[in-house]
Amino acid sequence: MQIKRAKNYGFCFGVRRAIELAQNHPNSKTLGPLIHNPEEIQRLKNDYNVDVAQNLLDALDGDTVIIRTHGVTQETLHSLEQSNKNIVNATCPFVTKPQEICANMSNKGYDIVIYGDIHHPEVQGVMSYSVTKTAVVLSSYELCKHRLGQKVAIISQTTRNIEGFLEIVNALVRQHKEVAVFNTICNATFDNQDAADELSKEADVMLVIGGKNSSNTKQLLEICKKNCPDSYLIETEDELEDVWFADKTLCGVTAGASTPNWIIDNVTKKLEKLNLMKGCL
Amino acid sequence: MQIKRAKNYGFCFGVRRAIELAQNHPNSKTLGPLIHNPEEIQRLKNDYNVDVAQNLLDALDGDTVIIRTHGVTQETLHSLEQSNKNIVNATCPFVTKPQEICANMSNKGYDIVIYGDIHHPEVQGVMSYSVTKTAVVLSSYELCKHRLGQKVAIISQTTRNIEGFLEIVNALVRQHKEVAVFNTICNATFDNQDAADELSKEADVMLVIGGKNSSNTKQLLEICKKNCPDSYLIETEDELEDVWFADKTLCGVTAGASTPNWIIDNVTKKLEKLNLMKGCL
Repeated sequence: MQIKRAKNYGFCFGVRRAIELAQNHPNSKTLGPLIHNPEEIQRLKNDYNVDVAQNLLDALDGDTVIIRTHGVTQETLHSLEQSNKNIVNATCPFVTKPQEICANMSNKGYDIVIYGDIHHPEVQGVMSYSVTKTAVVLSSYELCKHRLGQKVAIISQTTRNIEGFLEIVNALVRQHKEVAVFNTICNATFDNQDAADELSKEADVMLVIGGKNSSNTKQLLEICKKNCPDSYLIETEDELEDVWFADKTLCGVTAGASTPNWIIDNVTKKLEKLNLMKGCL
Repeated sequence: MQIKRAKNYGFCFGVRRAIELAQNHPNSKTLGPLIHNPEEIQRLKNDYNVDVAQNLLDALDGDTVIIRTHGVTQETLHSLEQSNKNIVNATCPFVTKPQEICANMSNKGYDIVIYGDIHHPEVQGVMSYSVTKTAVVLSSYELCKHRLGQKVAIISQTTRNIEGFLEIVNALVRQHKEVAVFNTICNATFDNQDAADELSKEADVMLVIGGKNSSNTKQLLEICKKNCPDSYLIETEDELEDVWFADKTLCGVTAGASTPNWIIDNVTKKLEKLNLMKGCL
């Protein structure tokens, strides 16, 4: 059985950068879990003594505090800056950008529309930079709840899809004289999805490695299942079952955006062992 | 037979304003025909000695020159300003707006996209205000001919429809980081169309009054024919035929954007005469 990884999988640029920053700052605390992967959090704790602070009170004066990829609200950033903590800002540059756009356009008097989930920390961070009316919506239907002015600027949560974004843009253009559209969608998620789609068409068994409660991992599984019914979601190599690979010729491997490479490597090593065992039968 | 006018018909605000300006400046010259209606041009000539100059050379120093609703290019405006002519600027305010937006955004470094017909005088006027790359397109397909920067501003010819505009906006948002969308579509045309649509559903005969080569008049006829097969396009009351109205109970009346009220009045007067004659039979 051949084992083949998708063209794009796993960590995006922003997550890789945040983990490198954490490794470069041992004995520090991240403000909330750095990524949605308990194994990686544990590794950073074991190997670098990088711990998780649930909130600002969990960090003491003199501590080094790492801001995670999602970013924080302007208020949290100010509190951190005014305290005696060392700040390592691991906010993804693709998230800093919508924060800056939000501040800039809002200061120019534009009302702000954010396509995203109001409960997501990234969105809460971005919207904290607005000084004008701000609508956070997931569909154009929700716009009716907001009374926005004639000049609006729209930005997107980085992980949203373009179709949903355009649906809201179109509704705004029909209603408003001026709509400044900033396409702040990051392609990393979609690059992983496109590659999973491509590989699962070719493979007769697919492994999707990632957290079982991670929404982007579950999306990958759905995409793979459409093309390859024998697709399985696993968190670690311990969940692999021999029967999945009987009579299979090509095992495709992809991984969610929060899955570190070492977990993927462990899975493929185990697959290679299974291959050897099959050869001995 | 009842005679009923559409809720909206005929001249838009900009055309009414231009004709008033012409009437207030007798013995002047319009730069090109003021509107697409020969009868109205003739009336202005007869009653106010307002003549048509085909180009700048047709106007002498000291003449009063009227700029029509479509506006002119920046170069033509400068030539006029530097000559010894009196300028009456009847450019529709809804056209001045996209000219200003074009100048402003282009000066800020945005490349310009205009949804419109490059041969139309309004579009030629607007695009003359750009100092950056400018793409005039009628569909997103045509965008591939242009190499635009990451920051673009899009405006529309005032008489275009929103669906075509959004099609181009969507293509731009997919490709560019920042798209400043200015909805410069004027609703007057569509208000007339909506009213014609509504009335032609009710009427059993429809009259569309306007120039036979006027595109907006022909669009009105098409809309009416869908709902009311007995729809007729006429330029004046002389074209009315008795047989059209035999056994009809409701005659709807609408008119193109270049049709003056006095022509519409003449048609309804003739219709009332026909009604009287029917009563005598």
